Amino acid sequence: MAENRVHQHDHDDQTELLPCVEDLYGGVSVNMEKPMDSTVFAPLLQASISQWREKGKKGIWIKLPIEHANLVDVAVKQGFRYHHAEPDYLMLVFWIPETTDTLPANASHRVGIGAFVMNSQREVLVVQENSGKFKGTNVWKFPTGVVDEGEDICTAAIREVKEETGIETEFVEVLAFRQSHKSFFSKSDLFFVCMLRPHSFDIQKQDREIEAAKWMPIKDYAAQPFIRGHDNFNYIAKICIAKSEVEGYASFSPLSTKTTSGKTSYLYFNGDLKNQLSCDNQKQKMPM
Amino acid sequence: MAENRVHQHDHDDQTELLPCVEDLYGGVSVNMEKPMDSTVFAPLLQASISQWREKGKKGIWIKLPIEHANLVDVAVKQGFRYHHAEPDYLMLVFWIPETTDTLPANASHRVGIGAFVMNSQREVLVVQENSGKFKGTNVWKFPTGVVDEGEDICTAAIREVKEETGIETEFVEVLAFRQSHKSFFSKSDLFFVCMLRPHSFDIQKQDREIEAAKWMPIKDYAAQPFIRGHDNFNYIAKICIAKSEVEGYASFSPLSTKTTSGKTSYLYFNGDLKNQLSCDNQKQKMPM
Repeated sequence: MAENRVHQHDHDDQTELLPCVEDLYGGVSVNMEKPMDSTVFAPLLQASISQWREKGKKGIWIKLPIEHANLVDVAVKQGFRYHHAEPDYLMLVFWIPETTDTLPANASHRVGIGAFVMNSQREVLVVQENSGKFKGTNVWKFPTGVVDEGEDICTAAIREVKEETGIETEFVEVLAFRQSHKSFFSKSDLFFVCMLRPHSFDIQKQDREIEAAKWMPIKDYAAQPFIRGHDNFNYIAKICIAKSEVEGYASFSPLSTKTTSGKTSYLYFNGDLKNQLSCDNQKQKMPM
Repeated sequence: MAENRVHQHDHDDQTELLPCVEDLYGGVSVNMEKPMDSTVFAPLLQASISQWREKGKKGIWIKLPIEHANLVDVAVKQGFRYHHAEPDYLMLVFWIPETTDTLPANASHRVGIGAFVMNSQREVLVVQENSGKFKGTNVWKFPTGVVDEGEDICTAAIREVKEETGIETEFVEVLAFRQSHKSFFSKSDLFFVCMLRPHSFDIQKQDREIEAAKWMPIKDYAAQPFIRGHDNFNYIAKICIAKSEVEGYASFSPLSTKTTSGKTSYLYFNGDLKNQLSCDNQKQKMPM
């Protein structure tokens, strides 16, 4: 097959094209898995674009593994722009039609969690961090962290608490979330305040990120000048206190569901309704 | 200053370095605003890395505007990896120490909204799309869309409803949200189900994306085989019905707050508590 293509190339330059697959949106995707000299790539790409244009193709995607960084400049010079990058590859895209592109947007948000973990003595699990903006401030804060790529929010909250403090927990609810912008580069941030129920109580702090960790009366946590002096921290403390005191503070529980493409996802919604719907489902599934 | 550097360069190659600024995390950032030949860039980058290493620097960032794509390959060959890319630039990073890097993660999620808009006759605003996976399925669905970079969820929901149907709305609450993975490339998706109150009722559909739009009895919406047959759609329909019927379906309302760096952000939490806290704040702010 490869020989055949080389053969065609000898006789007719226009028939040699980059290998590609068509997508459902009238576009094509090129995955450059093998190395190629940029002087070979340039005419091949040019011929391919001509052919795609003739065929009425719209969005052209080229995924370049980082080993083939030598081809980036060639693609850019032929009209491609960057779409997104991960550590090991760069995705470029070229919209052929004259119309406005309908290409999917790049990922725009990083997702973080804060963990509200309270024991039966109304003490919350708090840490002091040894780097970042809280370093040296003596502020006691909830364990927080970034949700890993592909990780569920409820899983990330349990993982972060375990990593930072050694405490085993069970996920209960999302009490609140905050959206903020330009939190790193031009990207936005979604931060979920998660309530977890502790299943162990002896703290074993992680040394790399955590200076100190302890159980602290929730009133003392909320009374810290830093917490009181900062809008978001202050509200979140009030929400947690309300949740711990007031029956009526309804929040969102996760329910494992399937997406239309059959993948598992979590739907977070009012916990009372979740229990009711789960009950209904159980009844439907019970043998007659 | 520039003259001085050129002067040094004539006498001692090692003192010529790329212009950079230090960050708060022991790293440096290089912003290549001006064009440079790759043969000039290569030795300059090499000398700079040596100097940064001697100084104990950690994360080295290079932001390359797409016009300078000719420098990508040079940076990669000297050990840089991709961090993220936007249409007009590529951010590369190099972690100098032997330790595991503590560099911030790339954005991992795209954020979307679905709009539940019901009138006083218990009819919901629904559309049929003329592209994508719903094209030609005759499924009536809520208006949906992607939250733009830097846009608030509550603003995006109002915008999408207006764009797709011409209906003016007011944001009320987030009723639920869903997190799913690998929804595009390797990225994840957060989808917020938003309730909006309509302020106008005459539909003027947008032609580009929307095949048809109408007000439809909520029971009929929920009874569609597609909705009933798909887990997430089915649950979301039940949540919206519960919200429209049950007093106790508490959901999350947005409150404008300030982040620690003084930016405006929205905190979404239990609407009843929000009203109570807002009231408390009003009282505090009232003149004695």
